[in-house]
Amino acid sequence: MGMVGGGEGAFIGAVHRMAAALDGEIELVCGAFSSDSQRSARSGAALHLPPQRVYSDYQSMMNNEQQLPVQERMQFVSIVTPNHLHAPVATAALHAGFHVMSDKPATFDLQEALALRALVRESGLLYGLTHTYTGYPLVKEARERIAAGELGAIRKVVVEYPQGWLADRQEDTDNKQAVWRLDPTQAGVSSCMGDIGVHAANLAEYVTGLNISEMCSDLTAFVEGRKLDDDGAVLLRFDNGARGVLHASQVSVGEENGISVRVYGELGGLEWRQEDPNTLWLKWPDRPAERLRTAGGYLGPLATASARTPMGHPEGYIEAFANLYRSFAQQIQARESGGSPDPLALDCPGIEEAVRGMQFIELAVAASASDVKWHRFDKQ
Amino acid sequence: MGMVGGGEGAFIGAVHRMAAALDGEIELVCGAFSSDSQRSARSGAALHLPPQRVYSDYQSMMNNEQQLPVQERMQFVSIVTPNHLHAPVATAALHAGFHVMSDKPATFDLQEALALRALVRESGLLYGLTHTYTGYPLVKEARERIAAGELGAIRKVVVEYPQGWLADRQEDTDNKQAVWRLDPTQAGVSSCMGDIGVHAANLAEYVTGLNISEMCSDLTAFVEGRKLDDDGAVLLRFDNGARGVLHASQVSVGEENGISVRVYGELGGLEWRQEDPNTLWLKWPDRPAERLRTAGGYLGPLATASARTPMGHPEGYIEAFANLYRSFAQQIQARESGGSPDPLALDCPGIEEAVRGMQFIELAVAASASDVKWHRFDKQ
Amino acid sequence: MGMVGGGEGAFIGAVHRMAAALDGEIELVCGAFSSDSQRSARSGAALHLPPQRVYSDYQSMMNNEQQLPVQERMQFVSIVTPNHLHAPVATAALHAGFHVMSDKPATFDLQEALALRALVRESGLLYGLTHTYTGYPLVKEARERIAAGELGAIRKVVVEYPQGWLADRQEDTDNKQAVWRLDPTQAGVSSCMGDIGVHAANLAEYVTGLNISEMCSDLTAFVEGRKLDDDGAVLLRFDNGARGVLHASQVSVGEENGISVRVYGELGGLEWRQEDPNTLWLKWPDRPAERLRTAGGYLGPLATASARTPMGHPEGYIEAFANLYRSFAQQIQARESGGSPDPLALDCPGIEEAVRGMQFIELAVAASASDVKWHRFDKQ
Amino acid sequence: MGMVGGGEGAFIGAVHRMAAALDGEIELVCGAFSSDSQRSARSGAALHLPPQRVYSDYQSMMNNEQQLPVQERMQFVSIVTPNHLHAPVATAALHAGFHVMSDKPATFDLQEALALRALVRESGLLYGLTHTYTGYPLVKEARERIAAGELGAIRKVVVEYPQGWLADRQEDTDNKQAVWRLDPTQAGVSSCMGDIGVHAANLAEYVTGLNISEMCSDLTAFVEGRKLDDDGAVLLRFDNGARGVLHASQVSVGEENGISVRVYGELGGLEWRQEDPNTLWLKWPDRPAERLRTAGGYLGPLATASARTPMGHPEGYIEAFANLYRSFAQQIQARESGGSPDPLALDCPGIEEAVRGMQFIELAVAASASDVKWHRFDKQ
Repeated sequence: MGMVGGGEGAFIGAVHRMAAALDGEIELVCGAFSSDSQRSARSGAALHLPPQRVYSDYQSMMNNEQQLPVQERMQFVSIVTPNHLHAPVATAALHAGFHVMSDKPATFDLQEALALRALVRESGLLYGLTHTYTGYPLVKEARERIAAGELGAIRKVVVEYPQGWLADRQEDTDNKQAVWRLDPTQAGVSSCMGDIGVHAANLAEYVTGLNISEMCSDLTAFVEGRKLDDDGAVLLRFDNGARGVLHASQVSVGEENGISVRVYGELGGLEWRQEDPNTLWLKWPDRPAERLRTAGGYLGPLATASARTPMGHPEGYIEAFANLYRSFAQQIQARESGGSPDPLALDCPGIEEAVRGMQFIELAVAASASDVKWHRFDKQ
Repeated sequence: MGMVGGGEGAFIGAVHRMAAALDGEIELVCGAFSSDSQRSARSGAALHLPPQRVYSDYQSMMNNEQQLPVQERMQFVSIVTPNHLHAPVATAALHAGFHVMSDKPATFDLQEALALRALVRESGLLYGLTHTYTGYPLVKEARERIAAGELGAIRKVVVEYPQGWLADRQEDTDNKQAVWRLDPTQAGVSSCMGDIGVHAANLAEYVTGLNISEMCSDLTAFVEGRKLDDDGAVLLRFDNGARGVLHASQVSVGEENGISVRVYGELGGLEWRQEDPNTLWLKWPDRPAERLRTAGGYLGPLATASARTPMGHPEGYIEAFANLYRSFAQQIQARESGGSPDPLALDCPGIEEAVRGMQFIELAVAASASDVKWHRFDKQ
Repeated sequence: MGMVGGGEGAFIGAVHRMAAALDGEIELVCGAFSSDSQRSARSGAALHLPPQRVYSDYQSMMNNEQQLPVQERMQFVSIVTPNHLHAPVATAALHAGFHVMSDKPATFDLQEALALRALVRESGLLYGLTHTYTGYPLVKEARERIAAGELGAIRKVVVEYPQGWLADRQEDTDNKQAVWRLDPTQAGVSSCMGDIGVHAANLAEYVTGLNISEMCSDLTAFVEGRKLDDDGAVLLRFDNGARGVLHASQVSVGEENGISVRVYGELGGLEWRQEDPNTLWLKWPDRPAERLRTAGGYLGPLATASARTPMGHPEGYIEAFANLYRSFAQQIQARESGGSPDPLALDCPGIEEAVRGMQFIELAVAASASDVKWHRFDKQ
Repeated sequence: MGMVGGGEGAFIGAVHRMAAALDGEIELVCGAFSSDSQRSARSGAALHLPPQRVYSDYQSMMNNEQQLPVQERMQFVSIVTPNHLHAPVATAALHAGFHVMSDKPATFDLQEALALRALVRESGLLYGLTHTYTGYPLVKEARERIAAGELGAIRKVVVEYPQGWLADRQEDTDNKQAVWRLDPTQAGVSSCMGDIGVHAANLAEYVTGLNISEMCSDLTAFVEGRKLDDDGAVLLRFDNGARGVLHASQVSVGEENGISVRVYGELGGLEWRQEDPNTLWLKWPDRPAERLRTAGGYLGPLATASARTPMGHPEGYIEAFANLYRSFAQQIQARESGGSPDPLALDCPGIEEAVRGMQFIELAVAASASDVKWHRFDKQ
């Protein structure tokens, strides 16, 4: 694995590295950690990389790695830059013949996402997108239970993602993440929807197996001087007629990372909360609610394969992240060994989720600005 | 106290009676418990009332009680009928000179509520409305903390009220409450918003001290054959610029009575959930969240006066309800003794909340049917 | 009902009165609220009692009430004094022909309890003991589930009761309850075990249906100058071979009223916590834990009869207390009408629990002082 | 790092490997994964080790690795065998000049632990012991808060560790861990105390900074045919006069891995539960309880250095484990670079905890068999 972005002080780059390292199946072999070449070099050294595999720009990395012997060169690129670089780096990697694992949102805008999808299809290479929350074992179980019809036809979805870290002008401090996430030239058209609303939308679609078909939204920039939203609420309609509510916030003071999803069908309901990720509630009309737990013997194969320790040994965010990396690595291995991957390894978000996500972000912003109530997702 | 409605088998009538009895300050002295006179008589006998104080219709009750000596006759009427009778009974009571304590929603429609308000004003009598959830000590504390500015200017409100009891066709069973709540001739224009959405709206306004100024709503009748909504979601805007999300449901299978409210201001946030009513969370950007508990020595005077037992002795729904009755009774006592009531006793919803509630219900229904996004509350 | 004790400022007297009033089946008709006659008179007036039914000592109350017409006089005495008066008042009441509902612990010492039991048996009158926690619907459900064998043979019981209110020298303040609970002449041989350890022991025996047969204990007075324990831990052995741990504390700073019980059998486990009283956990080896809730349609008849509101409307301490009073009143009614009480109404602690409790307290104190490990309960 | 034990199908070996890999600072370079050489070879191959670095016995591993160039050979041995092999492997490693990271309990019996301590001291090499739970950030915070005097003098400790996985005869199945943990020739004198009770005792001492000085214990083998305890309860006295309760169980059906600790001092209390590891409660007599969270900005340096992601991104068991490995690796690095380690890196259990643990296990067993109540820890 080679990494683009994620130099000193970056949060998400370190998470990607830990997630990739956890299972001993993926080795970081090179990186372009920063466009500041000294910074990139220092980061690479701290990661025990040989200096010649530490690059000061991603294009050099693609060029050089391409020329290394197959056994030696990186097999895929992990992209952990600000949003506006996701597509350029992914494009360069695909052109150079490398698979891509990208942080979200996939691209700067929808148009880029569509172009990227075309390129992925054409290249025949693998593309993964780190919608981390789908990596949790019990999120997978939730999806499987609904797919198996245990809740009956889905009627109502409540998905939320409150955070509080941008409740004041963090962008005026040395909080680098705050700076770029609120900068339209780096983040795109949205801060709150682009960073976390898109996770919520993805989670709702992943768990229910439904597609959002229409939305009505109200986005706000509460903190003075912001050009991008730091809060938003969206009414949802799904393609089967289900209704939903999605709300996300970066100014809900005191909230940490509270993404959660509740789904109600004709026969039952379920609830999952990321801050208590090893618990999944199933709720029934006429019998006690059931508390499912990560690694419980009663879970399905997908959830079971996604846990690393026995029940009661909490698994967290890094493990969920690692599940995406592990699936992605297994797909690469299968591809390279000419076999087919374990079907369980296919459960990793990819280029279709990339397009859906960018659609969601753009439509949320457009709908918020409109006096018309409902806005339809186009078929892309 | 005399009661109208609440005969054998009714749920809310019994709650009103327990709430009124709890503190030993209010005595049930008469009632018209059912329009079926035998049923009313049986109910009265079970409640140890003398037969001559058990009436078969509310008008007779008003007439007869009016003619009893002041010391003996009821002082106020408690109305616990289906919605369509609230206003007629309240009107009759006020005309006969009795104070009124009414279940919610206050009336069948907004027009009735406006007429009732005029009558209350004109009569000089007291009118209380049992928005029960404002009776909880920690809901009062939440209001006081916000009023004192501890959270700073309010930005975001999330209020929800999921229930699951109408997820199938209960109205085809002998569930009397289901029958009338889904019958437009008894319930009014809404089931879900009329029964529980109105509680949520009231809770949001009570806790924040703000008024909802605009809304965008999407109501649904999920269960086949229903004429009224059994689910709904509403985007809110408040008069200070705050935004909110309100959602309520009667088809969220497995949910019990999950009304909750979360409020975020510039400086802090708070959270209260009715199913864990003795806990109030205060959340801060830079220090640990605090868990306030009913009867904690650090609470303000209103919350303190509203608790009956020491910390750790759970107080519940009936106690919250009893707080409304106690305040209302104290107001009556003060009125009759010519004094002014304890200021803490004034914290009981009344005729203004009645009008706000009916506005909310009607606007939620109208907005849902409209293609226009935002709908303003008129000044009433 | 007549009350002895519970004058102005007392905590538990007010709770008894609310519990008795809640269902509208018990009327407070007289009282000797304090040995200070002015204080008693003021208390009686505040409770709207006629002056002639407010007594300055309990013996006068017994004498006078005995002479009133049967229809008019009190039917039972509620005893809410400090411990040392429980037995004298109960004895006087029984001699005067009145049933007795007593706060716990039943008496000052075991010898008194045995004498009281003899008198109760001889008198043919009813005796109830307010081990409140057995009044919660889900505690009853727990007992029923175990009795039905759902957990298999019981192996392990963990019962605890942490409080923090005596962590400093409250007995030097005007906290009257602290003063008498730490005074050996009023409280008996124990503070912590006598006040709350005895509740824990009762709860363990009630829920499991087992008897404690042996114990090993370690009691401590942490706060300087105390003559009685303010903390203790006890190893338990039950008559079926099960083992247990009981610990209670009045110096666990920050704890409120945390009585809880966990029971494990060969087939399953259960857990109930008083501060979340409307939830009962059933735990299984091979399927998800189940969360039972007060008023759930799946509960047994005893729990069902003990709930007053639908699921999700929290019931608390006063309601649990009221369940004991309601059962006791139903027993009296049945007795006086010559019938047999509803079997469900028999579920109220009585004179046998009184004796068990006093044995527990005395043995806990004796065992703590001993170098010998195990101490057996004598058959009493 | 070289590993002894932890071949195919073993649980804890995989955890050690993930923990070591997480931060990219430790590389697995060799192993003797099983005494079955084919099994060891298969395990090594699955871990991508070169065949010549996969050994079929630990002695060969020590011998061969010793002869490799310093740059190439393992720097320390990770021991993940059943208990009876811990000391022999550690001894061989130390004799061969390798540092040792061992699973717990440290040895088969106390005598071995004392001998091992002598050897460690003599060798000047590093010895780490994976009492995992001390690796959690908030356990470290708890320790720091108590050390800083925030709770005042400690009075009461409640530590518990319920599990349910041995509630039936798992030792008759192919559950290898159950087989050896219940076999006195592999596990030592205790199953429940040796496997998990020792964690609880360590946690109590780590968090409070106190030493247990006396104990009274009652251990039981509930499941028929067992030679070792599967449950136990222990009364504790600490060297400062504090009292405690420790209970642990392998037959508490439905419990997962419920280690928790509560500590009460003169000024405040705290609570931490491993199944919700990112929350630490501080409890106060006169103000609301505080909910501290992993990575909260208000935490001390030790807890802060032990977290890898922002608040609200759950960290779990593997991360806690990785903290021990990271500290141990930092100590080795400092040693080898001739510097002193970061003081924060010293927070890893070592040979003193090894001796304390074996004392605890042996004393718990001896005390349980005795009729004498209290048993003192000897100075070792």
